[in-house]
Amino acid sequence: MKFDIAILGSGNVAWHLSAALENAGHEITEVYSRNLDHARRITGRLYATEATDDLDFSESKARIFIIAVSDQAIAEVADAVILPENSILLHTSGSMPLEILEYSSASYTGIFYPLQTFTRNSALDFVDVSLLLESEDAETLRILKKLAASLSSPHYTVKSKDRKAVHVAAVFASNFTNHLIGIAEEIMHRQGLEMEMLKPLIIEQISKCLQVGAKAAQTGPAIREDYPTLEAHHQFLTYNEQLAEIYRLMSQDILDAN
Amino acid sequence: MKFDIAILGSGNVAWHLSAALENAGHEITEVYSRNLDHARRITGRLYATEATDDLDFSESKARIFIIAVSDQAIAEVADAVILPENSILLHTSGSMPLEILEYSSASYTGIFYPLQTFTRNSALDFVDVSLLLESEDAETLRILKKLAASLSSPHYTVKSKDRKAVHVAAVFASNFTNHLIGIAEEIMHRQGLEMEMLKPLIIEQISKCLQVGAKAAQTGPAIREDYPTLEAHHQFLTYNEQLAEIYRLMSQDILDAN
Repeated sequence: MKFDIAILGSGNVAWHLSAALENAGHEITEVYSRNLDHARRITGRLYATEATDDLDFSESKARIFIIAVSDQAIAEVADAVILPENSILLHTSGSMPLEILEYSSASYTGIFYPLQTFTRNSALDFVDVSLLLESEDAETLRILKKLAASLSSPHYTVKSKDRKAVHVAAVFASNFTNHLIGIAEEIMHRQGLEMEMLKPLIIEQISKCLQVGAKAAQTGPAIREDYPTLEAHHQFLTYNEQLAEIYRLMSQDILDAN
Repeated sequence: MKFDIAILGSGNVAWHLSAALENAGHEITEVYSRNLDHARRITGRLYATEATDDLDFSESKARIFIIAVSDQAIAEVADAVILPENSILLHTSGSMPLEILEYSSASYTGIFYPLQTFTRNSALDFVDVSLLLESEDAETLRILKKLAASLSSPHYTVKSKDRKAVHVAAVFASNFTNHLIGIAEEIMHRQGLEMEMLKPLIIEQISKCLQVGAKAAQTGPAIREDYPTLEAHHQFLTYNEQLAEIYRLMSQDILDAN
């Protein structure tokens, strides 16, 4: 089933989603941005999509409208957009509840949240993007599932309350792990050592963790209760009090979880 | 160049290293363990290796002796082992200095540290193992490099002082990242959600991080200085004070690094 879809927003999610939806055979009718040039950056890559800075979509042939703007701007766009009859309004945020769309002129509302990290200009196959779907309306949810399936994305129906938990979990599993690898980079560079030597370890550790679960994959001085090494590492880190505290707290949590 | 090598130890490193060295064409002459049965578990997989619980190697044809025991036991084995003339004694620890071998009967000493996480019974190609090498003796270092090259392992010459820094960095990049994914698992399970939905995100994030560096790959509420989300997540985590503190501290460190 092919849909006519308008994208409201011009950031990374809008960029990736519009191309993926078009590739899946849907028609992207319009891309909206307050800044018309930003909208054109996206429509320039699409087949025949109008760029617009006008939120009046009463004449649009789209039935599905996807808000892909920053969390802070969702309510403003949802409240201002003028939609045709029988339209479905979706947002793509991990943090914002469904209710943020309730004062819009949409007949139906829902959430189409791609749980993934997007970088502009770097291709990403939606096969590798978990889509978290939500709607109060059964028919809308059915359409969201078809849309997700058309992208070949693994998809899950998740309530707003649970989606918040997923977002917190994602911060730990993705943002914070990234930052820890950044701390490792700094320790290596400070010592004049090549980060390259750590990469096979990181790849093997994460791959093992995703296969057997973190508990079974845990190694290192904390899980071994190797206090002399913990103490020596803590001493090593005294040049940066906050790093030493992260080391202490993470080690303590590994000890406690054991 | 093929070497005759004895392995002193019967843990995971001994298990993997002995098989890899034999596959590379070297001869594993003996495997030592205090517990003969433990040594036999390893020699049973090798071509023609003697299992022994005797540290007198004066009659051994091996020239290279690799200690692969727990950090705490290295000094004891090094001090007690009786080695033939012209022998090289190595240890495989990330934390212990070269000097721990100085009271041994070896003519030459060195370090052959595989920077990798080993699980028994799970195959690991040494192509994916960074080897950190050290020796005060130029000829010994040359032999260590040949040994590493025979395993097709990426290898680096790293002084004891720097090796300690590598080990600290590895704890952040591997042990702590694993634990963070474990925290994410717990948040998901607690909410009755499938961990599966987070996996594509983790894989994409780590892969991006290793390609472009952690700083360029950093995303999430902290780097966006999205204080409402940080506050909401912190609130969500009040059921576990230590988790909330990890969230706060990691977010603070991301904010500070920016």
